[in-house]
Parts: sequence; structure tokens; C-alpha cells
Amino acid sequence: MSDLLLANASEVVTYADHARLDSVEDAAVAVEDGRVVAVGPTEEVTAEYPESDADRVVDCAGRAVVPGFVDPHTHALFAGDRSDEFEAKLRGKTYQEILADGGGILRTVEAVREATTEELVSNLRAELDVMLAHGTTTAEVKSGYGLDTETELRMLAAIDRAAADHPIRVVPTFMGAHAVPPGRDADDYVEDVVAEQIPAVAEQGVAEFCDVFCEEGVFSVDQSRRVLEAGREYGMRPKVHAEELSHLGGTKLAAELGATSADHLLYADAADVDALVDAGVTPVLLPGTAFGLGAGYADAETFLARDAPVALATDLNPNCYSQSMPFAMTLGCVEMGLTPAQALGASTVNAARAVGREETGAGRLTVGSPADCAILDAPSYRYLSYNFGVNAVDTVVVGGEVARD
Amino acid sequence: MSDLLLANASEVVTYADHARLDSVEDAAVAVEDGRVVAVGPTEEVTAEYPESDADRVVDCAGRAVVPGFVDPHTHALFAGDRSDEFEAKLRGKTYQEILADGGGILRTVEAVREATTEELVSNLRAELDVMLAHGTTTAEVKSGYGLDTETELRMLAAIDRAAADHPIRVVPTFMGAHAVPPGRDADDYVEDVVAEQIPAVAEQGVAEFCDVFCEEGVFSVDQSRRVLEAGREYGMRPKVHAEELSHLGGTKLAAELGATSADHLLYADAADVDALVDAGVTPVLLPGTAFGLGAGYADAETFLARDAPVALATDLNPNCYSQSMPFAMTLGCVEMGLTPAQALGASTVNAARAVGREETGAGRLTVGSPADCAILDAPSYRYLSYNFGVNAVDTVVVGGEVARD
Ligand SMILES: [Zn+2]
Ligand SMILES: [Zn+2]
Repeated sequence: MSDLLLANASEVVTYADHARLDSVEDAAVAVEDGRVVAVGPTEEVTAEYPESDADRVVDCAGRAVVPGFVDPHTHALFAGDRSDEFEAKLRGKTYQEILADGGGILRTVEAVREATTEELVSNLRAELDVMLAHGTTTAEVKSGYGLDTETELRMLAAIDRAAADHPIRVVPTFMGAHAVPPGRDADDYVEDVVAEQIPAVAEQGVAEFCDVFCEEGVFSVDQSRRVLEAGREYGMRPKVHAEELSHLGGTKLAAELGATSADHLLYADAADVDALVDAGVTPVLLPGTAFGLGAGYADAETFLARDAPVALATDLNPNCYSQSMPFAMTLGCVEMGLTPAQALGASTVNAARAVGREETGAGRLTVGSPADCAILDAPSYRYLSYNFGVNAVDTVVVGGEVARD
Repeated sequence: MSDLLLANASEVVTYADHARLDSVEDAAVAVEDGRVVAVGPTEEVTAEYPESDADRVVDCAGRAVVPGFVDPHTHALFAGDRSDEFEAKLRGKTYQEILADGGGILRTVEAVREATTEELVSNLRAELDVMLAHGTTTAEVKSGYGLDTETELRMLAAIDRAAADHPIRVVPTFMGAHAVPPGRDADDYVEDVVAEQIPAVAEQGVAEFCDVFCEEGVFSVDQSRRVLEAGREYGMRPKVHAEELSHLGGTKLAAELGATSADHLLYADAADVDALVDAGVTPVLLPGTAFGLGAGYADAETFLARDAPVALATDLNPNCYSQSMPFAMTLGCVEMGLTPAQALGASTVNAARAVGREETGAGRLTVGSPADCAILDAPSYRYLSYNFGVNAVDTVVVGGEVARD
């Protein structure tokens, strides 16, 4: 007796990280109460869980099944349209010039402040729908386009409401320290974040993580430490946007604080990588951002050489408009030299670590793990990265329910 | 009275090439007998073609409508699975080593020779389905994985059969001179192509173009000329794979012969571009191939500076596995510096030129042109390239029929 039986898959990938991929050929998965109860060769699984006893059978004939993707870094909640800036950048405008013209992140902040909470909920739902269609079953979503207490709280409330009735498992992160609001002094604003925003966010009780943009001209290492320590006091685990545009020290800060992840890491050096690995911080690489900016990519090989559990994420935001983890995998392979197996591991088990979900079994398809998976339109997981710019995901299952057909 | 009315689009792009984009806001398109009979502001169009008189109305509420894409260079018909070579390349294997291990194009040739014609038809249909879902309404498809008369004829027959009942308008190209078959001398094989294959292909009557891989170590300029002149004698218009891996002279040959297109062009210089422009040859750039090979990109700016009608194509083949023209547009923008408007023009009007379809009105949405278009999941055509690795196309219309929903 099972709630769902996925039968006759060409392969089922049960586990992948940066160093290893386990799979079974001609395989099946049986699900009860939202969790995997059996996975293995179709014959063996159906001996114990016959098709005739299953509430629902999906015949995967010749197609591969992989764990649902975990997207561990997104700014998926925003308002407004910045597609014109993409064009301005192509015409040679610098980000500084775009900012000076009232564009960039502050334009999104303005649009978010003006949006109703209902509009924010509806915007996020639309993004989550596209993410789900691309195989994402767990996604982190950050606040950080409010930059004042009221709007940051509204963003987190919108994340909570959108998550409540969406199949994707949402991990909410507070990021009041995403930018310095116009006309404010950074130290001054950090004081606001620490004294006013963080207690209010904790009181609201939605955010699980606290993140900060540690970068030259944004928040210094000391300011970032102050924000993350305050967040931690209120029960929010630290995450850091580190070494994206310069080598400032955010990675070492992440290690010092035992952050769950350090993200971007284009300018991280070998000592930084060692510090991350020693402290158990998961490095999150965001190749889509580098692609959109025409900047260089993080040096994934240095991370892999030191056995760091590299994770990938979309960084979905108006400046890097991609909801697709398969596209992040393709870029991870083509531009960073990951293998398709490493790219999948970076999008499943390692990505689950990057949002503190490793204990839930997210990102794998072994007995006891949540039945979150993607059935591909292809015979092998390799097509996720091999099929450039095309979504090889066909059907998506979350908690044993077919969430996207 | 209309067969189809597309109403309330946020914008309808009626025409785009490398230099110009025309669009109408809050617009509608009326269709009769498969052709556009009116396009303009919704109010004006519906005054003449009321919704109540239309056989079918599609409310495009807030979404953009663009001409269907023309993909002017594909090897969409093949057999076998080469996704493992993608991984081998990422692990540092060179294409030469892959060839030596029995991989590369010759592996595809072997698989195609072994496939039944029925299998070939079914393989091509599957690729065309994915292309259609990404907004392609006209596509060139080449033979060239047979490399013997019988299999080249079977490939063209399969193209003809798949095209017969598929919504995509297929443009068939004979490319017996795609590679030198194993164990054959190039001159010798060219003799076969000229004396045996071309007359047989002409007799079969499917192929409209004749293409050749003019490249160091493949076919020389003289061998290429011999093939293309023979093809032309039998009524097939010339196309050339030129200057992909070296500067051999294929572009000047294309100009000399008045070819319809010259494709790849990574090593084309300014004099080559001038020659193409003077001779009216359309340059086709294939950014997906460069992306997959980690090679450089063609220098689109030199082409645009000389007002060359640059076209984009997917180059869909086992070595560049992408059916998506929107992805080609994204790469055209991010990696080649096209604007989203130029990328759309390169995928519509200019791409129609590259397959000799400019006279049919393919690639535009003006009165009299075929009603081939894509309704986007987005308010502006810019999202085609701005939404990285995601298919912004929702609904596809071919000849006034909703072909993909
Ligand atoms: Zn970020
Ligand atoms: Zn080609």
C-alpha cells in the first residue's frame, strides 16, 4: 500500500553531493505519508509495494527521476520591472550610472514600498510557480527591498503568506542590511537594523536566517558582524553575502560566526576556503549573477580541491532574472567546470546544507526523506545541464503530491 | 469576421531586424485564412474585427506578442545519446580525444545509419515539439549524419515526413559534405557527393539548400565550391559553415557564390563582412555552440557596425543541445552585446532571410504575413533575453492555429 508509486524510471538519483552520486537504474520510488518508503529496482520495489495497491502510479518509462532542487539563495520577492536596465547595461551603462539615474536596487526598494502586501504575495507566488516548474521544491527567499521596519516586516509577512499555500517549501531570511537606504549613513542604519528591525522581525517570528551584504561601500565587516550577532541573539542563524565585488573579509566573518552559508565568493582565496570548510560553512556559488554582469565566475575548482560542499543557487532578483536551477547547473558546468553530477549535488544535498535543511532529508531520495522530486523529460540527470537553456524537468512532486504536471 | 483574434496584448512587435523594432502598445492581431489581416491598437482592430465575430479569441491581457522565431541553422535530426561527451569535455578531454575514442560526430553518424527511418521521424518530431514550445515556427533542418547516399536520402525523407504533420514550417537542407566519412579521402568523398548524392537528392526533391562544412581538415574552399556549385546546378541554394575554427575563406566563397547564408563566422574579418554585405549573404551567428565549446564568440559588433543583417540560430545538435531561440537571444545579448531588440530581429526577420523566407513574410506580424507568433508570459519582448535560461514563451500560433498552449 503506497500513496504514490513512481515506476520504470530509467534511473533514480538517490543522493548527490560535490563528491559522489548514487543512482539506481530501471528504478521505482514508493511514497507513504509524504516520505520515501522504498527506492530501488522497479521489480524489488513493486514486490513490496505493488502498482495495484498504490493510490497513484506515475509511469516514468525511460525518464530519469532526481531529488527536487533546493535553491538556497533568492531575492524572489520584489516588485516593479527592471528589464530596461538589462538593455542599458548591454549598451554599456555601468551599474553606478544606472544607480545615479534612479535605477538599480533602490528602484526595486521604491516599488516594493509602494506595493500592497497583497501585490507582494501575488508577485512571489508567480515566481514560485516558475521555480517549481523548473524542479525547485525548497527555496530560500530573502527580504531586503524594504530597508525600513514596516516594509521589511511586510515582505516577511508576504513570504509567509505565499509559502502557506504554495507547494514549494520556503525558507525565509531577513535581510534588512541589503543596502544602505538613500540619504542614510551606514552606521546609523545598522543601528536601526539592530535596535529596531531585528527585534520586530523576531517578534513577528517568520525569519529563520539573517543575512547581510558585506561589501566595500555597503556594510563593513564590523557592521556586518554587528547585524549578524544581533540576529543570532534573536534566534536567526547567520548568512553572509561575501567577497562578491572585492576581498573584504566576509568569508572569515562567516567562519568566525559559524554561519550556515557564505555566498557569491568570487574574491575568496584559498585561506578563505579553508576557513569555511573548517567552520562547516557551506559555500554558495551564484553563476547566473556572474553571467548577467559579464563579470568573472567564482573559482569552483579551488573549493572542490579542498572538498568544500559547494552549493549552487539562482540568486533570482531583478538584476539576474532566472528562476531556473537547471540553468544554474548548466552555468556551473560550462563556466565553472563542475561535472553534471557535481552540479546536481550542488543543487540538492549541498544546497540543503546551505539552508540548514540537511537533517530533514531534503535534496535526497532515500528511505525516510521527503518525497520531493523531479521527473525529467530525459533519460539521465545529465540532461539537466546538457540541455542548454531548456528545462528538462517535466513533472514535480512535493511531499508525495504531484505539484506540477 | 476573423478566424482568430489576439486581443489586449501589452505590446505587439510587428517587425524587428538588426536596426529597427516596430511595436504597438495595447494591441490586437486579427487573422483570416492563416494570415494577419489587421494589427494595431485593440480598439481599432476590434472596431473592424469584433471579438463577437471571431471564431476564437485569445485574451493576451498584459502579455506581449512577438513574431514566431525562425531558427535558420539546426542539425535537429539525429540519433543516439552523447550527453556523456559533455561530461568528458568538462573533465578536460579535447574533441580530438573524444573523436579518437569513437565519439563526436562519427558516433552520431553510426547511430543514424543504424536507426530506422521511423525512428528518425520520431526523433525529429520530439525535437520540433521542444522548439515549438520555445516559440520557433520556422526551422531549418540539415541532413549530414548519413555521409552515404542511402542514409542522406533517408534523413531527408524523415525530415519531409516529420514536417508533413508538424506545425513548424521546416526548411530542409542537404549536407552530405558535413564531415569526411571514416577511412575516406576528402577529394574522393567530394566526388561521391557531387556525382552520386546530389543528383539523387535532387531526384528525391526534398532539399532546398545545399550546405558544406568549409574548414581546415574537413573540406577546403575548392572542395566546398565544387559541392555548392553542383548543388546549385541541381536547384539547391548554397549555404556555408564558414570560419568556425580557422580563417579559411568560406565567407568569401559564400559571397562569390551568392549563398543565402554564411554561418558561424568566428574568424571572419572586416573584409569578409564587407564581402557578405555586398553580396547580400546573411550572416548567421551561433552563440550556443561557442557557449558549449567554451570557445570565443563571433564578433557581432563588427557585423552590426557594417549594417550586416545578423541572424541568430540554435545550431541544435548533440554537441550543442539547445532547442531554445530565447536562449540564443540571451547569449546574443550577454555574450555578443546585441540589444534585446537586435536579438529579436536576428531571430525573426533576419533569420527568415537566412533561409530565403523573407518574401513569405515570415518573421513579421504585418498585414499579409503568415499568422505565426508567440504570446509571452511577460509584458515585453525584452523578457525573451532578460529571463535567463527560462522560456518566456507561453502560447504559440502557426498559420492562425494555436499550435502550442
Ligand atoms: Zn543575494
Ligand atoms: Zn552546423
